[in-house]
Amino acid sequence: MSDNERVILAYSGGLDTSCILVWLIEKGYDVICYLANIGQNEDFSSAEAKALRLGAKKIIIEDLRDSFLNDYVWPSIRGGLIYEDRYLLGTSLARPCIASGLVRAAIRENAKFISHGATGKGNDQVRFELACYSLHPTIIAPWRLPEFFERFVGRQALFEYAAANDIPLPVTPKNPWSCDANLMHISYESGILENPDQEAPESLYQMTSSMETAPSDPTILEITFDKGNPVSLMNIQTKEAITEQLALFVSLNEIAGRHGIGRIDIVENRFLGLKSRGIYETPAGTVLYHAHLDLEALTMDREVRKIKQQLQQKMADLVYCGFWFSPEFDFIRQCVDTSQKCVNGTVRVSLFKGQVRILGRRSQLSLYNQELVSMDAHGGYDPVDAGGFIRAHAVRLKEYYRVQTETE
Amino acid sequence: MSDNERVILAYSGGLDTSCILVWLIEKGYDVICYLANIGQNEDFSSAEAKALRLGAKKIIIEDLRDSFLNDYVWPSIRGGLIYEDRYLLGTSLARPCIASGLVRAAIRENAKFISHGATGKGNDQVRFELACYSLHPTIIAPWRLPEFFERFVGRQALFEYAAANDIPLPVTPKNPWSCDANLMHISYESGILENPDQEAPESLYQMTSSMETAPSDPTILEITFDKGNPVSLMNIQTKEAITEQLALFVSLNEIAGRHGIGRIDIVENRFLGLKSRGIYETPAGTVLYHAHLDLEALTMDREVRKIKQQLQQKMADLVYCGFWFSPEFDFIRQCVDTSQKCVNGTVRVSLFKGQVRILGRRSQLSLYNQELVSMDAHGGYDPVDAGGFIRAHAVRLKEYYRVQTETE
Amino acid sequence: MSDNERVILAYSGGLDTSCILVWLIEKGYDVICYLANIGQNEDFSSAEAKALRLGAKKIIIEDLRDSFLNDYVWPSIRGGLIYEDRYLLGTSLARPCIASGLVRAAIRENAKFISHGATGKGNDQVRFELACYSLHPTIIAPWRLPEFFERFVGRQALFEYAAANDIPLPVTPKNPWSCDANLMHISYESGILENPDQEAPESLYQMTSSMETAPSDPTILEITFDKGNPVSLMNIQTKEAITEQLALFVSLNEIAGRHGIGRIDIVENRFLGLKSRGIYETPAGTVLYHAHLDLEALTMDREVRKIKQQLQQKMADLVYCGFWFSPEFDFIRQCVDTSQKCVNGTVRVSLFKGQVRILGRRSQLSLYNQELVSMDAHGGYDPVDAGGFIRAHAVRLKEYYRVQTETE
Amino acid sequence: MSDNERVILAYSGGLDTSCILVWLIEKGYDVICYLANIGQNEDFSSAEAKALRLGAKKIIIEDLRDSFLNDYVWPSIRGGLIYEDRYLLGTSLARPCIASGLVRAAIRENAKFISHGATGKGNDQVRFELACYSLHPTIIAPWRLPEFFERFVGRQALFEYAAANDIPLPVTPKNPWSCDANLMHISYESGILENPDQEAPESLYQMTSSMETAPSDPTILEITFDKGNPVSLMNIQTKEAITEQLALFVSLNEIAGRHGIGRIDIVENRFLGLKSRGIYETPAGTVLYHAHLDLEALTMDREVRKIKQQLQQKMADLVYCGFWFSPEFDFIRQCVDTSQKCVNGTVRVSLFKGQVRILGRRSQLSLYNQELVSMDAHGGYDPVDAGGFIRAHAVRLKEYYRVQTETE
Repeated sequence: MSDNERVILAYSGGLDTSCILVWLIEKGYDVICYLANIGQNEDFSSAEAKALRLGAKKIIIEDLRDSFLNDYVWPSIRGGLIYEDRYLLGTSLARPCIASGLVRAAIRENAKFISHGATGKGNDQVRFELACYSLHPTIIAPWRLPEFFERFVGRQALFEYAAANDIPLPVTPKNPWSCDANLMHISYESGILENPDQEAPESLYQMTSSMETAPSDPTILEITFDKGNPVSLMNIQTKEAITEQLALFVSLNEIAGRHGIGRIDIVENRFLGLKSRGIYETPAGTVLYHAHLDLEALTMDREVRKIKQQLQQKMADLVYCGFWFSPEFDFIRQCVDTSQKCVNGTVRVSLFKGQVRILGRRSQLSLYNQELVSMDAHGGYDPVDAGGFIRAHAVRLKEYYRVQTETE
Repeated sequence: MSDNERVILAYSGGLDTSCILVWLIEKGYDVICYLANIGQNEDFSSAEAKALRLGAKKIIIEDLRDSFLNDYVWPSIRGGLIYEDRYLLGTSLARPCIASGLVRAAIRENAKFISHGATGKGNDQVRFELACYSLHPTIIAPWRLPEFFERFVGRQALFEYAAANDIPLPVTPKNPWSCDANLMHISYESGILENPDQEAPESLYQMTSSMETAPSDPTILEITFDKGNPVSLMNIQTKEAITEQLALFVSLNEIAGRHGIGRIDIVENRFLGLKSRGIYETPAGTVLYHAHLDLEALTMDREVRKIKQQLQQKMADLVYCGFWFSPEFDFIRQCVDTSQKCVNGTVRVSLFKGQVRILGRRSQLSLYNQELVSMDAHGGYDPVDAGGFIRAHAVRLKEYYRVQTETE
Repeated sequence: MSDNERVILAYSGGLDTSCILVWLIEKGYDVICYLANIGQNEDFSSAEAKALRLGAKKIIIEDLRDSFLNDYVWPSIRGGLIYEDRYLLGTSLARPCIASGLVRAAIRENAKFISHGATGKGNDQVRFELACYSLHPTIIAPWRLPEFFERFVGRQALFEYAAANDIPLPVTPKNPWSCDANLMHISYESGILENPDQEAPESLYQMTSSMETAPSDPTILEITFDKGNPVSLMNIQTKEAITEQLALFVSLNEIAGRHGIGRIDIVENRFLGLKSRGIYETPAGTVLYHAHLDLEALTMDREVRKIKQQLQQKMADLVYCGFWFSPEFDFIRQCVDTSQKCVNGTVRVSLFKGQVRILGRRSQLSLYNQELVSMDAHGGYDPVDAGGFIRAHAVRLKEYYRVQTETE
Repeated sequence: MSDNERVILAYSGGLDTSCILVWLIEKGYDVICYLANIGQNEDFSSAEAKALRLGAKKIIIEDLRDSFLNDYVWPSIRGGLIYEDRYLLGTSLARPCIASGLVRAAIRENAKFISHGATGKGNDQVRFELACYSLHPTIIAPWRLPEFFERFVGRQALFEYAAANDIPLPVTPKNPWSCDANLMHISYESGILENPDQEAPESLYQMTSSMETAPSDPTILEITFDKGNPVSLMNIQTKEAITEQLALFVSLNEIAGRHGIGRIDIVENRFLGLKSRGIYETPAGTVLYHAHLDLEALTMDREVRKIKQQLQQKMADLVYCGFWFSPEFDFIRQCVDTSQKCVNGTVRVSLFKGQVRILGRRSQLSLYNQELVSMDAHGGYDPVDAGGFIRAHAVRLKEYYRVQTETE
């Protein structure tokens, strides 16, 4: 064993982390690459070969898809998490999942440092590092080290370093934007997307069909939830149901993606205070968000829902900003999970031309009482009470307007 | 002038308020009908003739469309108001507008009472009456009077009363649901819709095309806002812009409706605590909601936005529950309007097959700084600072996990 | 057994509920009186004799002090519940405790109705009845029945009814205000207190000494909490500790009362929308509120605390308004209890001349790190990080002021 | 004029900023000292002489007391600002006031840098610098520069530097804690106070009498507010009223201090995530906080108050964390000021032995309606309505418990 200090590097196989790998070796570290499979479309064996060829002592490839789904995506569905009213947090959820794998690997491999390739203006550095700091002491973030970022100004410098160090350059010309993929979504940013008034080209999208090419017939699905978790996906035409979690999510991604569902183009506020423009595709996540919201409306008490709504907005902010491993997230997650005991039932949705439409819903725990609400039946409800209700509410308003009028 | 006490009746020309009109006369009141034009599709002259023929002393038909748009719809757009994450409040906004007209008429006509046909389980009775109580003393709500509701159990009794009193019955067979229309939306509820698991028939929708019949080419629009109010609508193909408020809204309703935009099917929580199922079509409102949200993201500071988000949820609840005329609504509306000073700029949207997609946005007051956020430029931002930022945030987290670990 | 329908009457032994007892019998009911001992100073056997003499079929006297403390007062201490920044909710907490006893009795005794003597403008009717409605169908509230309240206009009518029905009148002249007592507090309202600008006389106070007569030496106590519950009270002079819950609370009431602690004089907002003026004495509750708050500051993470603070304000509103038995209260109580896992430790307080002063605090679960915060040691903290933290926070501010300046 | 770059130094005359002054000169800067008079007890002329003797090019002494009161303290009183339920923010309010003076001086004097002596773990560095960054580019914070803090480890190093540079050492032995004073308060921290379980010695307190030495008779005052601002202070014994703002505050400080009012001993959460222990004396601020709260209860609608309560907690956090000059603070301050239109009236308070007691209150804008609330009068209120109010509220609760029971 060498005397060098060991680093676990979050490795993607791409140009940036390949350069960082070589640079860390150049700095005298023993580098173990860590590559998590969280559902991205990746040639893992070629990434492995490349890492070893570039000098990594070892590469760990870990299949975290089940953990990502159960421990990160499902809590987000239960929470109804959405950042700034629009973003379903696909990248934000992946980061603590990977960080947790990195820390486990670092402990197992007795590595002193964890390193990653996230840049110095983005959210991912924060998400990686806050997760790591909660569990492990030391981080090397080359993109924040002047020694590194002053050497690699612009991509041209990276290309030159790669050429000089026998790091293979991407064979296909790089898209004029960057992207990040996992089971839940693909995000796109930078490059030509940095102008927020410039429309993204149709060719950018990888998980979703365009409205034009999406099928001309809807797919109707029934999605069943238990305690807020999706547990069954049934195509009502075929009557086939999928209940295995990963298969369910993958299948829903495929169907919803085919119908062009889940694209957004937004300006968002990064944790570091910058506004940035992002484009996201989240097919299954979008369908589940809407179906879950609809089922909550059926089974959750109005006032519980209001309280949960406050909590979930805070929870979404915490996820976005990288506080997955934090006292407040632990707390808020327990609260939100408490609220989900009643979220059982089935929602019928139509997927068509980019849209999720709710067609119907039912639940054993429904708080909807058809007899009570019906226009054609009293259902034990006395309309006279509404008069008292209204007049009692009006007491305060009358006082206010009386004083307003008197003192004008 | 007769010695009878005078009632101003919110009259729609339909069966219910016609029966109430006759019934009030039967009870010895002089009835003045009040019919507000808030953009619904209505034969006002035939309603007028009918009211007078049934014995109304007078009918007042008032065009409130401009007031409805400026004083109710625009504040709602500025506020980003949405009830329980989905409902754009079309009916809720109309009620205080009409109530305000009723009160003005009651004062002008020296009427002691205001009456309406809203039923005893719904929200509209609350919205009408709270608005009235803030401004005028006395309400007659026949649907809450045992004398009335025990006499008219079920629609059959109304039909018989109508027949006996020469009240014309609707010539077309009534749809098996009820609906309510105005400039902003049409709502549908009751009847066959009372089963929340039963899909609404396509034939129900009046303002929006089906996905199938919607045009196969998108319409691209540029919507310009000033202080959060829509001030211009430009079709980027024709380059024609509409700036007159009512024309802008009507045109956007037509275009968005043609593309099938703005349908929702939800279970919602009424103020009286019942869950009900409603279906809504809000074409222009839906487009403006999304465009305004997008422009806020560009021009509003992140933390201001968070505070406004709390306020707007409260504001939406207040509108839904009928507290338009209340001290808290006065307060919150002023706060929200304060937040809109910066919401100037233009959003480019595509309308197609039921979807509003944001294509781009720009503003003189944009807080988006392309140079600052660019991956290819420092823009005065020092990545080293992010390290301090992260480590400082981690201090608290480390302490928490340290204590957790020590005391486990 | 008689054929009359049975009523369980919340009976206090006072004039009002005695009259209601007689009136209910007059109306043909069989009445079972229910009198809960929740720590008020009361002659229970004389109340029993009186009820039976007036015609009650039975009187149930139940000692609910332990339940009141454990199931109502302690949750309130854990929650840090305080209504409108000042009121510690002594009466509000007692009502659901009594209502729960009433419902249990009604079920046991097979009684169809529950009745109480709370008046028609107050909060207590709401608190009693919402609790009952959650668990039992039917309420008789005489003070809201026109038949009753039109008969008993003003106290003189009650006196005459009492005289005519052999109901004993109070032997001592009634104070010109009303009051309500339990283990936690005494409340005073009405009568001369209805003028909010009129100071309450010193003679009003029953649980607390005046500042003038309070001892001229402080008492120093150490209060120990476990999961937010007070578990030990130690006088540091005598070193004697009380750990039995009821004894602890009673003793603290005595000590704090002697030092004149826990008086407030406030205008508050009733649930029905009226403002009312109340005076309260809550000796032990005040001390525990402050000690618990102090311990939370030591052991609870800042961000958890912020979230809990939102929840506890909502929780206090729910208690005040009578929603103890409600879905939202169930939910929020579980959330708050989750937050209390860390609230272990000891707080040292001085009680003196109406004041609770915190002298010191300690905990095994303290998140206070003396080495970290010390001015004289780095404690693993690098001051350089603070610079990055500040500059990163300033990015957003600079952008805002840049745009402000450019567009002025 | 020298070619050196100019620094404006926030100078206090104490050891730290004297050393920084000398050190900055040693580094080649021209230093202009800036010393704000915000009501602290200070020998300004001796501080001036000292600064010049040590080499400052100039010293600016600016009387900011009126600005501090009007622009910082009054907004805080209007807001009811209190951090973490206890701290009245005396230091937090002073920092942006001083920073604003520093920036004005820097612009006037054409200085490139602003420097201060705040340490690297505290809140004040953040407050100073965020304020400066909003308005001025560059900061030198010696206590965060390794060159500085590695040279001055511990106070002994400062003493040696002082001795070597002819900087006068404090003549009186330094207290074993540090303190910071202004018009509003004195804060104490560090040294022996760093142990949160160690009681502070009575000798520490400078603005407030001990309970023992406080007068044995209360002082009764009437405080009048206009739009939430204190505008008159009347001693009801002498009937003398003070209306000049600064005199009012100084006088109230003196009276309340004499009665021992406004001491707290707390553990608080610093912005940087550390818990620290602080002791504060805020005599006048404490009285005004309570009086203002009481007047709001009388004149502000319940629901407005709830919304304002959320805003004021956020506002207090912003002040504490140094965001006085920020978009969100601008926004929230406007909202809070909007809420204060109705906060007019007079509160009568008793100051005695450390306590502020409210004796009564009155207002032209009072929403308290004695006739309406009176137990002895109906006042236009129909008790029957309360029954409908309660039963309507119970609809939701009954549904919940019905479903709970059915599915158990």
